[in-house]
Amino acid sequence: MSEKELSDVRADLQERYNQFKARGLKLNMARGKPETEQLQLSMGMLDALNSASDLYASTGDDCRNYGMPYGLPEMRELFSHMMGVDASNIIAGGNSSLNMMFDTVSCGVTHGFSGCLPWGRQGAVKFLCPSPGYDRHFAVTEYFGFELITVPMLPTGPDMDVVEKLVSNDELVKGIWCVPKYSNPTGITYSDETVRRFAALKPAAKDFRIFWDNAYCVHDLTDTPDQLLNLWLECKKNGTEDLPVFFVSTSKISFPGAGVAALGASDNNLAVLKKHFSYETIGPDKLNQLRHLYFFKDYDGILEQMKKHRKLLAPKFKAVANKLESELGGKGVACWTNPNGGYFISVDVLNGCAKRVVSLCKEAGVTLTNAGATFPYGKDPNDSNIRVAPTYPPVDELEVAMDLFCICVQLAAAEKLLNK
Amino acid sequence: MSEKELSDVRADLQERYNQFKARGLKLNMARGKPETEQLQLSMGMLDALNSASDLYASTGDDCRNYGMPYGLPEMRELFSHMMGVDASNIIAGGNSSLNMMFDTVSCGVTHGFSGCLPWGRQGAVKFLCPSPGYDRHFAVTEYFGFELITVPMLPTGPDMDVVEKLVSNDELVKGIWCVPKYSNPTGITYSDETVRRFAALKPAAKDFRIFWDNAYCVHDLTDTPDQLLNLWLECKKNGTEDLPVFFVSTSKISFPGAGVAALGASDNNLAVLKKHFSYETIGPDKLNQLRHLYFFKDYDGILEQMKKHRKLLAPKFKAVANKLESELGGKGVACWTNPNGGYFISVDVLNGCAKRVVSLCKEAGVTLTNAGATFPYGKDPNDSNIRVAPTYPPVDELEVAMDLFCICVQLAAAEKLLNK
Repeated sequence: MSEKELSDVRADLQERYNQFKARGLKLNMARGKPETEQLQLSMGMLDALNSASDLYASTGDDCRNYGMPYGLPEMRELFSHMMGVDASNIIAGGNSSLNMMFDTVSCGVTHGFSGCLPWGRQGAVKFLCPSPGYDRHFAVTEYFGFELITVPMLPTGPDMDVVEKLVSNDELVKGIWCVPKYSNPTGITYSDETVRRFAALKPAAKDFRIFWDNAYCVHDLTDTPDQLLNLWLECKKNGTEDLPVFFVSTSKISFPGAGVAALGASDNNLAVLKKHFSYETIGPDKLNQLRHLYFFKDYDGILEQMKKHRKLLAPKFKAVANKLESELGGKGVACWTNPNGGYFISVDVLNGCAKRVVSLCKEAGVTLTNAGATFPYGKDPNDSNIRVAPTYPPVDELEVAMDLFCICVQLAAAEKLLNK
Repeated sequence: MSEKELSDVRADLQERYNQFKARGLKLNMARGKPETEQLQLSMGMLDALNSASDLYASTGDDCRNYGMPYGLPEMRELFSHMMGVDASNIIAGGNSSLNMMFDTVSCGVTHGFSGCLPWGRQGAVKFLCPSPGYDRHFAVTEYFGFELITVPMLPTGPDMDVVEKLVSNDELVKGIWCVPKYSNPTGITYSDETVRRFAALKPAAKDFRIFWDNAYCVHDLTDTPDQLLNLWLECKKNGTEDLPVFFVSTSKISFPGAGVAALGASDNNLAVLKKHFSYETIGPDKLNQLRHLYFFKDYDGILEQMKKHRKLLAPKFKAVANKLESELGGKGVACWTNPNGGYFISVDVLNGCAKRVVSLCKEAGVTLTNAGATFPYGKDPNDSNIRVAPTYPPVDELEVAMDLFCICVQLAAAEKLLNK
């Protein structure tokens, strides 16, 4: 394209952008928030536990009273299916897996793992952050003063060459954040080889831990769902069970904020964490666990529920994919992922354009996740990645928002090329 | 009593003890656990929120979705009445006030208060433990490596001469554990003067904090309930709002483990704690808050509920008091408290006898709180204090258990006197 042609294109885009701006939109694609219709799917849960219910666990414990600090055995059993970890190695906890991750980091900082000094006393400790990744993960370790090290994300997961090199050479590298299935935000699932290489890691630090946040373990959106190799079993083969700590929750299965979270870990890790939790809390809300058990009944019940979520979510992901393809396909101004599940689509625009795109969208009434949020310290070195969260707005609004988004991507690209 | 007389008494006690032992009792007075009838009082709460309920907060937020990290405004308002702290200075949280206390200590250890260095980087920090006191409080600060300093408990609360001296001279003293109303385990309520002296404290450490766990704020058991002066208002008068952090929960109002906890603090302290919580969690279970609001409606609803608890609990406290009076009164082998509320009665036996009494009871099938548990590190310097928790067993069992207890107290005393 000549500079003149490009200039015309920009003028046209600018006009279309101005028209959008004039519409006074107010749409939000910033966070992975379920839409109201999804919440409706779990309304039965509010009736599933009532004053006529059996309120005793299989152990005979009254779920209304103190006790059972690691959750109901039947809840741990249900999580066992979701997590692929033995039920006896699982703690069914409160309403937030982020809370359990934070507490695990916090426990490492103040008390340490594997008999090592607490992380907080080992100097300038570091944490690996496969990026683009989940901002709230990175934020936890940033809050505790860790140095965050960016590891490139590939279509197969974190670049394991980089991971292996970093962990084997540096005793100050203490862990890595992972969303192994339908990764936030790229939506990719770690390959079998990636999982095997995680299980075979030989970190210099005895207290290195893999934070395996399987947040989207059952969150399939297509007939060809991704399959994630079971890290727990691979670690057992390698005798490396102390490496990973597993996390999961029902936040995006039942109700965000009123779900149940769980943590899975080896006997050694659980000994440390159970001690920590025994000082921290009197135990989880067992009635809410019972409520979940009565509503879902078993793992099949969870899968059935996920089919209903899929019915609501798949059209949204399709709408976004269609818009991206029809508006940006072949133009060389962006590339994006087409995930088989999860909550996000990741779009890479031209280097140096992500902030501009997000800001243009915002000015025209569409809120996106901040550019940079998917990288450590909120700083995308290429300023190119944007996380699109299609779940909350209805399809028609989503299409409008994506029309605007695609205009902004092109407009920012045109601006960049013209200013070169 | 001559040695011969004493020896006869012991033989008689031993025989009565052996008869008890032969009965194969299995009773538990170890922890402050509500009995099943108390749990029945809240059964209506399991129906109060259902699929037909309005699930939106007064702010318009959907309580089923993410958001409102500091809890529902109407829940904070309800806690405001219980805590005597402005609603805007309250966070309505999850199911455990112990969790909020632990997190507050943890936040102090890793991040610090009032712009000071984190407690974890200030060397051998110390915490004041009015004793006898609550074992789980002391355990939290012990877990984080604080040096625990025993402060004598008087009928007016902690010995404030000692407190004032310790905090004003030593920058390493970082806080104090308080259960100001119906204190665990003595059941006394801090006098107005004690509260005023707390509000007027001038600690050497800028980051000294009073942990004000008002666990039994509405847990009256008589027509002449204790009145606790409002520390928040006293601190406001003194400009010392940054000193206290307030805690409360509905664990012993609705369901233990499925209640709602809250934290109250000054704007300065909240800024630190809200930041901490913003990394730690996505927010509390708002549906459980709504459930509590629908069931209790308002503060009067809470007070009504407490009258029902009182009806069940007062006879138990009376039964224990009657047994202590009839079996031990005037014998000079024990003294005890007669609290107007709370969950415990504190018994002081002869010095050096508490462990023996607890062990004698245990051998005969009655489990008590471990002797020493009410002191830092589980070590009662006089080996004399025993915490009696009368709430869980039914009255008839309680009377049997107390008969045994009183025999054991006398038997241990006789043993001691004969061995002198």
